[in-house]
Amino acid sequence: MQLTRAADYGVRVMIYLAAVGAVSRISLVELAAATNAPDSFLSKILQALTRAGLISSRRGQSGGFRISKTGLEASMLDVIEAIDGRIYLNTCLIAGKNCSRKHSCPAHPVWADAQRAMLQVLDAALIANLAAGNRGASLQTGCAEGPQSLIDCANS
Amino acid sequence: MQLTRAADYGVRVMIYLAAVGAVSRISLVELAAATNAPDSFLSKILQALTRAGLISSRRGQSGGFRISKTGLEASMLDVIEAIDGRIYLNTCLIAGKNCSRKHSCPAHPVWADAQRAMLQVLDAALIANLAAGNRGASLQTGCAEGPQSLIDCANS
Repeated sequence: MQLTRAADYGVRVMIYLAAVGAVSRISLVELAAATNAPDSFLSKILQALTRAGLISSRRGQSGGFRISKTGLEASMLDVIEAIDGRIYLNTCLIAGKNCSRKHSCPAHPVWADAQRAMLQVLDAALIANLAAGNRGASLQTGCAEGPQSLIDCANS
Repeated sequence: MQLTRAADYGVRVMIYLAAVGAVSRISLVELAAATNAPDSFLSKILQALTRAGLISSRRGQSGGFRISKTGLEASMLDVIEAIDGRIYLNTCLIAGKNCSRKHSCPAHPVWADAQRAMLQVLDAALIANLAAGNRGASLQTGCAEGPQSLIDCANS
């Protein structure tokens, strides 16, 4: 039960692009260096983020990747789901799945509560706030780091 | 990011054994039928639960599996970890792992909070309470099902 490396890199990419701002376009090479992700792997992640409308891409000499307005409003959960699809802690929670024991299994509501608790935290963490070193008052666990630490993070 | 099938079956086994009580020994065949788990797969799960001291096993004609005192006091989290090991939402949260960006990455405290929120729910759900159709006051999401629904669940 662990996040995929792709989703982890996706979050790093989004925070990096949010810190750079919606004006500049960043090349694949720069993003790969900043996130420590292999180029070919990163390409697929960027495709998924583009498909989800979280970033835009342009080919050519002055091309590259830029965070979109949607991306600036996105949460960590939005980014993860853009790459990995919807998160389900257990198969019995998959939307639309016909789970015959849904209403009688003692464990079912626990899986649902555990999933809800985890997703709420990820959904409350907005990419733009993280890039600005601020997780928002709702989480009350301030991240005091500024832009330099963000770059350090992306470079690690 | 999904629970393994083994851990899911492990939780079903534990709830079933808790409902039966610490007196009776249940055969592998009965447990397999009750949890819908393939025999060989279930054997490995039962070995892990035995190693963790959550159940005891005895060979022979009057043998079988029985929940232990430790098992009756266990939470869903204890059962999952007995089978899958410690849960880490992201590799950067692995205890003892030297994550160079731990103190500077804006996403790190969010991963930690999300993991904590999920684990708290799983840790508050005691197997014995679930078997009795009671999740405990702390969760405030009562599971009103009785023993029959437990059997229904295990048989589904």
